[in-house]
Amino acid sequence: MKKPENNSGSKLKVIPLGGLEQIGMNITVFEYEDSIIVVDCGISFPEEDMLGIDLCIPDVSYLVERIDKVKGYVITHGHEDHIGALPYILKQVNAPIYGTKLTMGLIDRKLEEHDMQKNVRRKVIKHGQSVNLGQFRVEFIKTNHSIADASALAIYSPAGIIIHTGDFKVDYTPVYGDAIDLQRFGELGKKGVLALMCDSTNAERQGFTKSERTIGAIFDTLFAEHPRNRIIVATFASNVDRVQQIINTAYHTGRKVVIEGRSMVNVIHTAQDLGYIQIPDNTLIDIDQLRNYPDEKTVIITTGSQGESMAALSRMAMDMHKKIFIKPNDTIIFSSSPIPGNEKAVSKVINELEMKGAQVVFQDVHVSGHACREEIKLIYSLVKPRYAIPVHGEIRHRHAQATIAEELGYDSEHILMLQTGDVLEIDEGGAAVKDHVHSGKVFVDGLGVGDVGNVVLRDRQHLAEDGIVIIVLTLEKGTGQLLAGPDIVSRGFVYVREADELLDDSAMLLQDSMEELQNKGISDWGKIKSTLRDNLSDHLWKKTRRRPMILPIIMEV
Amino acid sequence: MKKPENNSGSKLKVIPLGGLEQIGMNITVFEYEDSIIVVDCGISFPEEDMLGIDLCIPDVSYLVERIDKVKGYVITHGHEDHIGALPYILKQVNAPIYGTKLTMGLIDRKLEEHDMQKNVRRKVIKHGQSVNLGQFRVEFIKTNHSIADASALAIYSPAGIIIHTGDFKVDYTPVYGDAIDLQRFGELGKKGVLALMCDSTNAERQGFTKSERTIGAIFDTLFAEHPRNRIIVATFASNVDRVQQIINTAYHTGRKVVIEGRSMVNVIHTAQDLGYIQIPDNTLIDIDQLRNYPDEKTVIITTGSQGESMAALSRMAMDMHKKIFIKPNDTIIFSSSPIPGNEKAVSKVINELEMKGAQVVFQDVHVSGHACREEIKLIYSLVKPRYAIPVHGEIRHRHAQATIAEELGYDSEHILMLQTGDVLEIDEGGAAVKDHVHSGKVFVDGLGVGDVGNVVLRDRQHLAEDGIVIIVLTLEKGTGQLLAGPDIVSRGFVYVREADELLDDSAMLLQDSMEELQNKGISDWGKIKSTLRDNLSDHLWKKTRRRPMILPIIMEV
Repeated sequence: MKKPENNSGSKLKVIPLGGLEQIGMNITVFEYEDSIIVVDCGISFPEEDMLGIDLCIPDVSYLVERIDKVKGYVITHGHEDHIGALPYILKQVNAPIYGTKLTMGLIDRKLEEHDMQKNVRRKVIKHGQSVNLGQFRVEFIKTNHSIADASALAIYSPAGIIIHTGDFKVDYTPVYGDAIDLQRFGELGKKGVLALMCDSTNAERQGFTKSERTIGAIFDTLFAEHPRNRIIVATFASNVDRVQQIINTAYHTGRKVVIEGRSMVNVIHTAQDLGYIQIPDNTLIDIDQLRNYPDEKTVIITTGSQGESMAALSRMAMDMHKKIFIKPNDTIIFSSSPIPGNEKAVSKVINELEMKGAQVVFQDVHVSGHACREEIKLIYSLVKPRYAIPVHGEIRHRHAQATIAEELGYDSEHILMLQTGDVLEIDEGGAAVKDHVHSGKVFVDGLGVGDVGNVVLRDRQHLAEDGIVIIVLTLEKGTGQLLAGPDIVSRGFVYVREADELLDDSAMLLQDSMEELQNKGISDWGKIKSTLRDNLSDHLWKKTRRRPMILPIIMEV
Repeated sequence: MKKPENNSGSKLKVIPLGGLEQIGMNITVFEYEDSIIVVDCGISFPEEDMLGIDLCIPDVSYLVERIDKVKGYVITHGHEDHIGALPYILKQVNAPIYGTKLTMGLIDRKLEEHDMQKNVRRKVIKHGQSVNLGQFRVEFIKTNHSIADASALAIYSPAGIIIHTGDFKVDYTPVYGDAIDLQRFGELGKKGVLALMCDSTNAERQGFTKSERTIGAIFDTLFAEHPRNRIIVATFASNVDRVQQIINTAYHTGRKVVIEGRSMVNVIHTAQDLGYIQIPDNTLIDIDQLRNYPDEKTVIITTGSQGESMAALSRMAMDMHKKIFIKPNDTIIFSSSPIPGNEKAVSKVINELEMKGAQVVFQDVHVSGHACREEIKLIYSLVKPRYAIPVHGEIRHRHAQATIAEELGYDSEHILMLQTGDVLEIDEGGAAVKDHVHSGKVFVDGLGVGDVGNVVLRDRQHLAEDGIVIIVLTLEKGTGQLLAGPDIVSRGFVYVREADELLDDSAMLLQDSMEELQNKGISDWGKIKSTLRDNLSDHLWKKTRRRPMILPIIMEV
């Protein structure tokens, strides 16, 4: 391995601000002296206990404090977990965005929604091209994934070359465009690569991920098996190649195609504008034209393959869609696998569809967009990095990639298991985590960014579990004499109309408690509130084994 | 098929009160003239949107109204979804319970917990034996499942024989006791069986379910591969045969065994008392003795294989277990698959364990307890029922069984897809759903049974999503003059310390609204409340795009 010139003694810092403890919210900072570049800027979806939260974005305090150093955002591909946080983060740290054509098309649409197009510089980069960003040069390398135009990045720094795969798979026969540029990975490997940051999502799975193209033949078969049915296919909104293959089969079997679901319509529009999907003339029809064609001449391609409650397919299943009604002559194909956590939601939709007499096909009509173990070995064997840095995935997935690196002969000193916020300092001389910076998730709820934190979430969890009981009372100003109450109002605790006794007892208990407090001459509001709260809490626990939130409110007249 | 004697003209009614739209809450009523028997009486676990609910039991109003007819509960096996509701339902409809020895042992323990042992008659039945219950005779037939002593039932009625499989698989080489009594299924089939009610849980899966015994060899291999590690195995508390196999391997490798987790300790105790598990002397040790043995001489068998937050393994993973601390020398084996819906919880535990340096094995150390498609075909081919009634499973699973019946030549008239509450009237002359009775889920929350219904749940969902904003004000009795407030108190809505402006604006808005109401001379509380609520709701939506619950409370002095 040739040693790159690095006479300054500076080290390259690699600082992941997300993407290491979970699937999603991918963002990694590369810093060398006065230059910072940011790779990807994604959201994550809320965990189950993040009640009411719409999405999570990374905490980028680290970048805000070094805003002058930030040369740009380099984006690997157009999925939400890689681009979704851009509108939020750009408001804090504005810098140019670099990405391939389709990726940028999807970013454009996102910025448009947030009315930010005029404020952000963007540059489209082709595969094979590089962009200079301060002390860095970043080369975009063609890869394959479940969205077109995905890139790996070769990040040239004075400390050496880092290759970041982004999300990828090896597809020798992709539906659109070229296969992954394995030659370039090999060429760079020969030059000498300091570290490989490789996608871990499927690192637990043996073998190879199948080519996207294999799904085309499956659609041909399924369409042939259901010649008289209306066919509805649910898949990921952003999987343009999948939609292309459905359209191909539809066209060959003389069916008209409706695209349904806002996010899919958006992506397909963008892809069509940019030439990433070929739709024969007179194939797409408007949803309102469906009635003009017999069932066997139509296909509906729709969102909702993950059972998302507001997506088009779910609304159809629940009889809440305005224009499409499920009927026994429908064949519904799930061209997807449930993302972990969505299994029950998907099952619910399948059950509803089958209850309406429709036939549902959900097995083996999908291939993953991520590399399995043998593909990961292939990339390692081409790149032969000095250091392995597993990224993208939960701990379990990154550990699985670490075991691959071990199998390939890497020792534990050369496999770097980072945590979000770690500051990895790395060059030919060595690599070590030297520091840990502030990082985390910021919750977006409606228009609020960051105004819901752990206190609010804990309250929501408490309210969700056992509801709330409010105690109100009015005291006389000055004397502290009780003028009204204490009254009880509850929500989410117990069905009030059938809980007279419990609530009457509780009111009585509070009356007694107040009387005692007044007799003792206690007028401190804090003391009054805590006494009422504790007494009522004990009483309700004894009677119901529940712990609703108890909120005493005192008014003064 | 010989025709049974049924000169009365009466029909047999089959009324499922649960178990058909979901996995769990299995209970089916069989009624003939003055006789009712109930097969199984299980709970289901709450769905995601049933916030704060502990468990669901069936609504048995139908039985309560016919309490004099009820001859008994016939139980197929000892899993919670078949026995868990007994303590609750027996309080409404007390009748004798019939089941095999281990099943009854587990029921006994349950009744003991509810202090009900003295009030309920119970009778242990052996496989091959029958019990007469009014116009019915019920024969217990040996099957295999993931708990020992599981039974299918042959239900003899004047209208014909119904076979109910319970939960089952075909295991030619079970760990404990005999293989499923296929001969008896064949013999009854030759006699003539009116209907087969068959387990659908695995009806979507091709092939055969593997024998429980195959797991023993896997434990042997895994233990041999980790000779220096402490081994922790998580599995289902009730899978006695699985625990037996772990203990066998532990014994052969000279390891001491700790059983941890309340439900597992309970089941294994019962199984040991009744002779369903053989534990060599000096193999079991107390958890406090662990420290006296080196890691490589110990195995901990524990609950928590589903990532349940309060189970022993989860507590170990989160560093919340009082006595067992995960360390890098631990090998943790998940001898289970995640039940749909539990995937993320299981992943969370795996990630936590791996973060502590432990090695986690979670693939291929489990076999299912339910019959796959080929086994279901086998049972149909032995029994050759006139009617197929797929039971146990969601719609999708029961539909999958229906497709098996179709493959075997049944037409749609002979495949009966029931819904919970349907009254199927059936005899040799025909079968049809003639009525639909009241049925449903009753929620258990703490000590409350049925006091949380849809109103309370909707409130909890609302509170969970966006929290609550309370408006309090005091009016003068008689005049209706505003004496204090309106004040605002919120919980779970927004982090109050950083939302001064929003809350000040809101208070101002309410002041103005009240002033306007008072100027107009409006003193109707309903009108005041709705005006304040609507005005505040609009304001908050505009500012935050959230819709917290808004609760105006008026006090009078």
